[in-house]
Amino acid sequence: MSGVEDAAAGVLGVDLHLEQAAVGSRRAALTEALREAVRSGRLAPGTRLPPYRSLAADLGVARNTAADAYAELVAEGWLTARQGSGTLVADRVAAPAPGPARTAAPPPPPYDLVQGKPDPGAFPRGAWLAAARRALTAAPHEAFGIGDPRGRVELRLALSAYLARVRGVRTDPDRIVVCSGAAHALRLLARVVGAGPWAVEAYGLPFHRGLLAEAGVGTLPVTVDGDGARVAEIPSGAAAVLLTPAHQFPTGGPLHPERRAGVLEWARRSGGLVVEDDYDGEFRYDRRPVGAVQGLDPERTVLVGSVSKSLSPVLRIGWMCLPAALVDDVVAAKGEREPYSSATDQLTLAELLASGGYDRHVRRMRRRHRGRRDRLTAALAERVPGVRVTGISAGLHAVLELPPGTEPAALAAAARHGVAVEALSSYRHPDAPGPAHRDGLVVGYATPPERLYGAALSALCAALAESVGGLPGGATAEAAPPGPWFPPPSGSR
Amino acid sequence: MSGVEDAAAGVLGVDLHLEQAAVGSRRAALTEALREAVRSGRLAPGTRLPPYRSLAADLGVARNTAADAYAELVAEGWLTARQGSGTLVADRVAAPAPGPARTAAPPPPPYDLVQGKPDPGAFPRGAWLAAARRALTAAPHEAFGIGDPRGRVELRLALSAYLARVRGVRTDPDRIVVCSGAAHALRLLARVVGAGPWAVEAYGLPFHRGLLAEAGVGTLPVTVDGDGARVAEIPSGAAAVLLTPAHQFPTGGPLHPERRAGVLEWARRSGGLVVEDDYDGEFRYDRRPVGAVQGLDPERTVLVGSVSKSLSPVLRIGWMCLPAALVDDVVAAKGEREPYSSATDQLTLAELLASGGYDRHVRRMRRRHRGRRDRLTAALAERVPGVRVTGISAGLHAVLELPPGTEPAALAAAARHGVAVEALSSYRHPDAPGPAHRDGLVVGYATPPERLYGAALSALCAALAESVGGLPGGATAEAAPPGPWFPPPSGSR
Repeated sequence: MSGVEDAAAGVLGVDLHLEQAAVGSRRAALTEALREAVRSGRLAPGTRLPPYRSLAADLGVARNTAADAYAELVAEGWLTARQGSGTLVADRVAAPAPGPARTAAPPPPPYDLVQGKPDPGAFPRGAWLAAARRALTAAPHEAFGIGDPRGRVELRLALSAYLARVRGVRTDPDRIVVCSGAAHALRLLARVVGAGPWAVEAYGLPFHRGLLAEAGVGTLPVTVDGDGARVAEIPSGAAAVLLTPAHQFPTGGPLHPERRAGVLEWARRSGGLVVEDDYDGEFRYDRRPVGAVQGLDPERTVLVGSVSKSLSPVLRIGWMCLPAALVDDVVAAKGEREPYSSATDQLTLAELLASGGYDRHVRRMRRRHRGRRDRLTAALAERVPGVRVTGISAGLHAVLELPPGTEPAALAAAARHGVAVEALSSYRHPDAPGPAHRDGLVVGYATPPERLYGAALSALCAALAESVGGLPGGATAEAAPPGPWFPPPSGSR
Repeated sequence: MSGVEDAAAGVLGVDLHLEQAAVGSRRAALTEALREAVRSGRLAPGTRLPPYRSLAADLGVARNTAADAYAELVAEGWLTARQGSGTLVADRVAAPAPGPARTAAPPPPPYDLVQGKPDPGAFPRGAWLAAARRALTAAPHEAFGIGDPRGRVELRLALSAYLARVRGVRTDPDRIVVCSGAAHALRLLARVVGAGPWAVEAYGLPFHRGLLAEAGVGTLPVTVDGDGARVAEIPSGAAAVLLTPAHQFPTGGPLHPERRAGVLEWARRSGGLVVEDDYDGEFRYDRRPVGAVQGLDPERTVLVGSVSKSLSPVLRIGWMCLPAALVDDVVAAKGEREPYSSATDQLTLAELLASGGYDRHVRRMRRRHRGRRDRLTAALAERVPGVRVTGISAGLHAVLELPPGTEPAALAAAARHGVAVEALSSYRHPDAPGPAHRDGLVVGYATPPERLYGAALSALCAALAESVGGLPGGATAEAAPPGPWFPPPSGSR
């Protein structure tokens, strides 16, 4: 024991330079050094430590400093102190396993044309920061405490004015519930809408169908044609219908006015709910935005929107404009203790909306998206004229119709050319009636940074020319002009 | 019809001042005015509108402007256009119901001593905004796109360093998953931990027990005494045990070192998981923070933390430090498409941690909380000496032990004096073994603004003096000194 006492610090493997440190930090440094020695295994379980007096002398620190360090590590369970047997390294300290094996993921393709995501580089950092500064400076203290489970009133006020002006929505702040995005909205609605399956468009996001299924809600497909969903097909037993009226996702057209009326007639007749996924209603290029169905019957319709397409999906801010009768149930499902969206971001977005900064950003993005869409259609017309482009009057994506049977080849060629893009067939409801899927690609044109967009288009055209006809360099394609692709609008609608 | 044509605008009830407006905004203004006329019922369903030429002439706008407005409202479903019968107000437009009845809620009590919430007025706005500016300016573009489902790497890096330094946590950024708070963490863990009930402390948050129950997970109470949870009582069939080792919630002591070891022994023997709710580990007043149990065995323990107590619950940022084997399952349960916590806030918090701003805030808050705690204990000692105060060495709340049977009277008196406070019995697990609950109040001292804290204490003391003895003004109470209140530490632990 005397050897230990002579060079306690050396035995412990503690390498400290404590002389200059303040008393508090000496204790902290000694504690951490000892903890690390146990952690690393340098001090094996069962090792008897020198008396704290010896360690203190050896290190030139006060006895209290060493005693405190021992006491702290005993309290934490690294050491054990037993009457009569001194201080030992606890024998129950397990070494941490290495982190999960990081199998090197393959590098992503250089050209990201997967739909649904704005260019992260287009986020308006300056405007956002300026709005944050104004909003957080002006906010009342209570804004930083748990508040209304519907979300910040500043945001609900700004949204009700903005959505009335831009989308023809009829609501008021009391009937808006802020959520983290469309997925969160659908999860909440799935819990409050009466029992029964939901009708969904035969082409739509598998992600949405999947989260409804997870919530125990089955989905029934409704055929989509050039006028949007054939709402006459909605089964009367459906509890709700999920539609994308502004811009059918992903095939692209707005819902025909008669069908807008028709779906509301269905809702009134059956008591069902219309869920309007207004995912990109602000991005319409060829005419003014088509107003929301919600405005026609706010008591039968839930409008679901978010800033995921307009600003960024990482803000996690969305909203529901609800029928009065659903508000309390949705709030209860959301939970008083889980506001979900950051209040600082909600305040900032409210300020951005109220100050006009949001409009300016949307206008800039609309010009940019339209320009990209025009470049896409021009490149395709020149290099693969056999490919028809549809669904281009709005949104952040287009659908390329491909000759029958060529979709897999086109996808494979795209991958070879470094283009990430999705097959239209991946959006088709597995139970969709009618003929098998049409071949196509869903091309998102918003994501690539500006400097890569031209190269991305070239790569896409080269892939299509290889796989479905049309020659790189502008020669005319051999492919026959395609016939009507989706079923034509039905007579009855 | 000629009368209509003569004064089309008047018939429509359209009151417009369009002469000075630009062409685009004339159309927009006319469209909105017509929409509003239909909405409000001034134009009843079935009303025939004047030909657009007449309206244009009457208003002095171009014919195209009027035609566009009609077309847009037809597209939106407000109007219908039928060959041969002109343009009619659609008969399917329903009036919105008034918002949900807002029954005037009673005003909240002026003194909020409900535990669990920091003072919203103490949020460090300036430091937060400065960190946001630095973080958002420096962030790479990809930060504004959907990224790692575990959360921003900047935050996971900053947390792994911070938690190692302050809480003795052993982890790395790969094993941290960001979530929206403790509730989100428990919901995710409930889905990935093997089947079986969870052991929980016999006193704890009913909210946590409730969300486990919602996830289909039953809870088994483990007795709590002055040394924390009696971990020897954990049934071997439990899939996990949820503990508050730093500061038993709400009764207040740290988990005894032998019990720290004991719970890990249980975990190794049974394969169960230790879930460590480190809800206020940074706020320890009488000695250095007790390190986390997680550091003793990172492969058996999940540390759950958040900024809800240290900064604000409305940021919705929490974290889990996970065993390597659980990371993939938790990420899968969280979902690739739902990052949950705002990336702007994650980046800002990372910067606040890395720059030392978070430490400064925590130190300031620690001083402030300690000062409030001292004022609470002094006021009680002076005015209601019969009330014992426990659990005060850490956290944002204390427990006032009350003479048997006086809890309801104390609560009622508190309400009369304008004090919101919670009964200790409300935290007791309904299946807790042993004697019926002890009487007590859980007093959160962090929430009131500084200017109200003194008055809140006076009101609380007055309520206690009235209901449980002790005289306002400092006289000695009649109540007998209470005996041991929780079961004493058991011999075996």
